[in-house]
Amino acid sequence: MTRAALINGRTIAAEMHTRIKAEADALTAKGWAPRLVSVSVGDTAAADIYVRNQKRNAEAAGVAFEERRFDEKISLEQLTGVLAGLNADPRVNGIIIQRPLPAHIPVKALQKAVHPLKDVEGMHPSSIGNIVYNDLALGPCTAVAAVEILKTLPLKLEGLDVTVIGHSEIVGKPIAFLLMGLGATVTVCHHMTRSVAMHSRAADAVFVAVGKPGLVTGDMLKPGAALIDIGINRVETLDGPRTVGDADMESCAEVAGWLTPVPGGVGPVTVAVLMQNAVAATRMQMEHYANAYMAEGA
Amino acid sequence: MTRAALINGRTIAAEMHTRIKAEADALTAKGWAPRLVSVSVGDTAAADIYVRNQKRNAEAAGVAFEERRFDEKISLEQLTGVLAGLNADPRVNGIIIQRPLPAHIPVKALQKAVHPLKDVEGMHPSSIGNIVYNDLALGPCTAVAAVEILKTLPLKLEGLDVTVIGHSEIVGKPIAFLLMGLGATVTVCHHMTRSVAMHSRAADAVFVAVGKPGLVTGDMLKPGAALIDIGINRVETLDGPRTVGDADMESCAEVAGWLTPVPGGVGPVTVAVLMQNAVAATRMQMEHYANAYMAEGA
Repeated sequence: MTRAALINGRTIAAEMHTRIKAEADALTAKGWAPRLVSVSVGDTAAADIYVRNQKRNAEAAGVAFEERRFDEKISLEQLTGVLAGLNADPRVNGIIIQRPLPAHIPVKALQKAVHPLKDVEGMHPSSIGNIVYNDLALGPCTAVAAVEILKTLPLKLEGLDVTVIGHSEIVGKPIAFLLMGLGATVTVCHHMTRSVAMHSRAADAVFVAVGKPGLVTGDMLKPGAALIDIGINRVETLDGPRTVGDADMESCAEVAGWLTPVPGGVGPVTVAVLMQNAVAATRMQMEHYANAYMAEGA
Repeated sequence: MTRAALINGRTIAAEMHTRIKAEADALTAKGWAPRLVSVSVGDTAAADIYVRNQKRNAEAAGVAFEERRFDEKISLEQLTGVLAGLNADPRVNGIIIQRPLPAHIPVKALQKAVHPLKDVEGMHPSSIGNIVYNDLALGPCTAVAAVEILKTLPLKLEGLDVTVIGHSEIVGKPIAFLLMGLGATVTVCHHMTRSVAMHSRAADAVFVAVGKPGLVTGDMLKPGAALIDIGINRVETLDGPRTVGDADMESCAEVAGWLTPVPGGVGPVTVAVLMQNAVAATRMQMEHYANAYMAEGA
């Protein structure tokens, strides 16, 4: 018996693309065609599928997407120089750092080197700090996507009891602050939590971003709760390799009111949010330029 | 019947001063005498008691403290210019913006104008973002103080169930991320929460920072829990005006294992943390300078 309504991430993403494209076209008409530059270093086979997906989404959203690939042996200093150049280039509106990076390139150092105004992935400490201050211009894509999905449900966010399983810096924690900013009562659980189930069973909505298949089972949910599954796991089945989330779909679907499938749930919306950030970044840069260079009243 | 042990914030602050002064003296010997500049605008009678307290604490901690007062009519542009000057002055290691500010000066704009390396109050979005990334150089003083107090107790922080009542950007939320970084399971409650008591009664430690006397009562606590009271309220009593926290001391003391009194609890430790930040900022600036200007191996 399935209680849960499956949330269609692709439909939500498609609706977002329509809005984003209209905005991108309007900006292009003003001479500010949104352009993303994707930076990859070294052997990128593992990332290629994501990059192709981003490129496809960019086209659907009216955003130009340019790939730049660098040799594995590039130094952090050279790479920081590359980013400085992209920061200074007025035709570049957003910069994406593809992962994985070679071992000698620390991801955080690169994140800090992207100018906050072009931080479309929302990972610069300033962007994270801005979310805490409820200044939501460029948020981390996965976290924003997960919360956008919750917002499509008929649940009042003010006073909602929410449990977030997973406390990563770029997903779990930002989801927590975004939800706090919307008035929810948020509990963040993780591998050190004594009883995740105690908290998740009391929640109206559960977000899980851990990377462990079958982590969340039906008995951990309140009947009728929403479950937003951000996990991405590759598992071997009799039918070959499959991608699954952190939820045990069979048992969760019997209890939850709403459920995001993997794939086809949070993933498509995440990339749409990246494009939304690209357009938002372009608009902010356009306004920044106008304030700096144009006469009052222009 | 009192169960609770009262936590002596003044004793904790005094121990911190000893450590901070040793560090300050070591830096001074190297030519980097830690110096704070306090910026006040307009009628400062309400803030004066805090400024005097900071000055006294600075002296105890071996940190120079210089007050700069500006006329109420100063513009945001002029004030931002003042801050730019302080940012650029190598003899200034930390900048404090005293509140309240006149209505025409937006506090956030000023917070952003202080260079992150001199942000001893820990309020620049980068500082907040850094806490999320577990990069704890300069944290918001009150939040850091509250967590430092919890650390003095014989409680294992990993897996600890903690409820934070109050979701302000500079106290409640930073306390939440600091505790998450230490492995606690954190729930953040606020005025939109349906049942604060449900969450607080399940917690091993409760932090309250709301500004409402008598908000937390004994029946909202698990027997033996720690209660860290950050509230500062001025109330009228038969004996005249008194400062109290957010806890109903009488009922809470019967249930809690540990309790911070107001005053004499979090307050003294907060100012000590400000001095700790001053010394940390000075050290980072010294290292920054060494990396920039000194020959390798120097």
